[in-house]
Amino acid sequence: MEHLIIFDTTMRDGEQSPGASMTKEEKVRIGKQLEKMRVDVIEAGFAAASQGDFEAIHAVATAVKDSTICSLARAQVGDIQKAGEAIKPATRGRIHTFIATSPIHMQHKLRMTPDQVLQGAIDAVKFARTFTDDVEFSAEDAVRSEMDFLCRVFEAVIKAGAKTINVPDTVGYSIPELWADRFKTLLERVPNADQVVWSTHCHNDLGMAVANSLAAVKAGARQVECTINGLGERAGNAALEEVVMAIQTRKDYFGVETRIDATQIVPASRLVSTITGYPVQPNKAVVGANAFAHESGIHQDGVLKHRETYEIMRAQDVGWHNNRLTLGKLSGRSAFRERLKELGIELESEVALNSAFKKFKELADKKSEIFDEDLHAIVSDDAVTPTVEQYHLVSLTAHVETGEPPYATLIITDQDREVKCEAYGAGPVDATFKAIETVVKSDSELLLYSVNNVTEGTDSQGEVTVRLSKGGRVVNGIGADTDIVIASAKAYLNALNKMTATFARLNPQVG
Amino acid sequence: MEHLIIFDTTMRDGEQSPGASMTKEEKVRIGKQLEKMRVDVIEAGFAAASQGDFEAIHAVATAVKDSTICSLARAQVGDIQKAGEAIKPATRGRIHTFIATSPIHMQHKLRMTPDQVLQGAIDAVKFARTFTDDVEFSAEDAVRSEMDFLCRVFEAVIKAGAKTINVPDTVGYSIPELWADRFKTLLERVPNADQVVWSTHCHNDLGMAVANSLAAVKAGARQVECTINGLGERAGNAALEEVVMAIQTRKDYFGVETRIDATQIVPASRLVSTITGYPVQPNKAVVGANAFAHESGIHQDGVLKHRETYEIMRAQDVGWHNNRLTLGKLSGRSAFRERLKELGIELESEVALNSAFKKFKELADKKSEIFDEDLHAIVSDDAVTPTVEQYHLVSLTAHVETGEPPYATLIITDQDREVKCEAYGAGPVDATFKAIETVVKSDSELLLYSVNNVTEGTDSQGEVTVRLSKGGRVVNGIGADTDIVIASAKAYLNALNKMTATFARLNPQVG
Repeated sequence: MEHLIIFDTTMRDGEQSPGASMTKEEKVRIGKQLEKMRVDVIEAGFAAASQGDFEAIHAVATAVKDSTICSLARAQVGDIQKAGEAIKPATRGRIHTFIATSPIHMQHKLRMTPDQVLQGAIDAVKFARTFTDDVEFSAEDAVRSEMDFLCRVFEAVIKAGAKTINVPDTVGYSIPELWADRFKTLLERVPNADQVVWSTHCHNDLGMAVANSLAAVKAGARQVECTINGLGERAGNAALEEVVMAIQTRKDYFGVETRIDATQIVPASRLVSTITGYPVQPNKAVVGANAFAHESGIHQDGVLKHRETYEIMRAQDVGWHNNRLTLGKLSGRSAFRERLKELGIELESEVALNSAFKKFKELADKKSEIFDEDLHAIVSDDAVTPTVEQYHLVSLTAHVETGEPPYATLIITDQDREVKCEAYGAGPVDATFKAIETVVKSDSELLLYSVNNVTEGTDSQGEVTVRLSKGGRVVNGIGADTDIVIASAKAYLNALNKMTATFARLNPQVG
Repeated sequence: MEHLIIFDTTMRDGEQSPGASMTKEEKVRIGKQLEKMRVDVIEAGFAAASQGDFEAIHAVATAVKDSTICSLARAQVGDIQKAGEAIKPATRGRIHTFIATSPIHMQHKLRMTPDQVLQGAIDAVKFARTFTDDVEFSAEDAVRSEMDFLCRVFEAVIKAGAKTINVPDTVGYSIPELWADRFKTLLERVPNADQVVWSTHCHNDLGMAVANSLAAVKAGARQVECTINGLGERAGNAALEEVVMAIQTRKDYFGVETRIDATQIVPASRLVSTITGYPVQPNKAVVGANAFAHESGIHQDGVLKHRETYEIMRAQDVGWHNNRLTLGKLSGRSAFRERLKELGIELESEVALNSAFKKFKELADKKSEIFDEDLHAIVSDDAVTPTVEQYHLVSLTAHVETGEPPYATLIITDQDREVKCEAYGAGPVDATFKAIETVVKSDSELLLYSVNNVTEGTDSQGEVTVRLSKGGRVVNGIGADTDIVIASAKAYLNALNKMTATFARLNPQVG
């Protein structure tokens, strides 16, 4: 059976979701999980976006050996150079360069003529080939590009040395039948179309990203660009887990196969959700909490006489209930380190390991069962994986009493100076945030506050996500603790720390 | 342009999601919102499932006048009778009867021969026609039924008087191209196919419910069965908002139109999410918080020179930012009542109105801006819309201090008796739940705990969802308060109250 290439862009297109930006350490952790899942190509970022992103791609290329590592690059010398350097350590490295080809984008965004765009594409591919043989070219907004021009561009970039031709539905506008037609036409009309891999990249604005991607596969595409949990700008990208399971469940129809280890899907979903702070809704296909009926606690007596009566996949096939309980109160430091390693978590220093181990012991005192998700939450903590950390929680006292205004007192460090602050609020969390603001005075706006359990049970860690906005900049902060007020304080400070770490960041919109 | 019928089954198939069951009052509220959105047909429930569901359908049929009200019924005399009675008050009432037609379902679930199934279908339709002219017939698991048999059944039920023929993809197994082929074949082969409306009902297990539904429309279906937020069993049903916006955005391709007022989509999404406790993920098409790029606080300088460069819909077209701020601290009782009425909320008694108004005033003291979402949260409160309420929160004190175990003391009423309880816990919420359990001893398991802001801002009400499971039964409890600990206590007690209200409930699986 023919092989379908799975190209994961969670760390590039997914990262462009508001507030979803990932640190280097987080990217390495996700990269290791994607490798374990046997993803063919990992787009680890956009090297020219920032120094941080450059370093993150470089780190992923160093840590991951079984998957191809790719960096995005606009069709510009500087971008391609950065991309080439970033992927250098990879066993197999790819440069993915792009330029828009639709009239509306060429005119309003690029302010270039079609001929200039064509020449830019050729030059970009040729230059990228000086760094690696594995060059992918994308025609941004291909969905609204004129077919004749698209064919001319693709013909030229194939001649220039592109090995993969990506056709993105940048605005999530297409429909399966039309999307398949577009691929059929391209495969027929573009000279040497059979010398390259055709790739599809779809957005979900009308809810059809997965169906469009699969229609392209049926029409001859052999690479699907997708993200874990369908993360991505606006309504997101095609969800990797849905594409993979559709291909597997309907092999009869598609006649292709992926090399994905589907049992790694749920762990990957949880990891990405934890790191980005983006929750997965219960009625999400494959990775939602309700996706498998018999997992949701409902017994339909007499109905589920045959599993197949209502199920076309099995929960365990996609990794539900994989979270082995390997560590307990009595686990030692080396067992702890070993388990982290199995999860793809390598802490940079002994100090970080000690800090994480201490947190693990504290947690084991409060909580009877420690799951892998708990460990991910522990190492996500600021103190364990420090980024630029201006503020830090030292202690917190909060008091709630019906009829009285809730009250919070905190001690936080501002750089190294300890500061005490206090405030009343509409609730203990509001009081905590207000107390912090008396010191920090960030003047940012709270866009979103949400709490999710890391695992089941009342003593589970609550994982709080706080989304702050200031002057058009959006950051997500995350904090976990069995105490929701403390978790909220951590999340708020985490967001403020990210807000403080000013870095210029480009958000290219390849598709 | 031809008209496409939008059939909403949020209150029937959507309600079958674990813990999503709705009270009569909640169904009326959702029904009024669907009517305002101009949904053609509202499936309000399954009358034979329980006395409660029967009454809920009856109440919706009484309150809603502009939409057809429908009840589901198995192909059985008792079910159809119940359905017929429940829809009696409707201006236009429909009975939707179904029986499975796939070999696996006939053999393992129904234990009937194909001929028995055929006869059952005919009898059911004929009997349903004695209650209403508007009878819909569904062939459960049509996706895996043999085409010859399916044609025989449909021919017979059309002859028996069915006006709508629904073809469900019960297991979420289909693919657009194949689904369209199935409709084309049926429309060609079934005698008198042109005398009825063909309907599609798709599930999202492989992420293709919307694409499959639309492929059916392209092939001639003129009714789509769908739910708000894609709610529904497992991975849910086709999302109404995606179907409607795809039809509208790609009119050029589909050549049909709906009569939906799209500006009511986001309010409907929020209402359903509030009532069921099912959150909507940010990267959800149309109704997710990030669905519209420029709403997410990110300014892509120089990129959004033209809105159309990246957007195919406008946020305001689907009702973002419709939540008018109409009430403030000084608003009186009649303005409050008026606004509730506009929102489709009619409280049953003066006592309930007084209780709601009191809560509104309390909230206005704590919170500067009161939005429609806040009002929905207020009336969702147990005290305002009482169901069978065994437990009720009187007061709560909680204390958090780093280094000390968190502690909570509560006074709750158990029926009318006041009881004091207290406990330590891993956090103030855990302590609160443990304290409640010292009295209630429900022995249920906490499956899910989540908090979402009702509106933006730190003084926003937190809306807590608690999902409890006991002996295979799952309930969602909801509680809202600006204080997250109090909201959690309310949610937990709300879930326990639902758990206590024992009612036998059937969950039929039409599709």
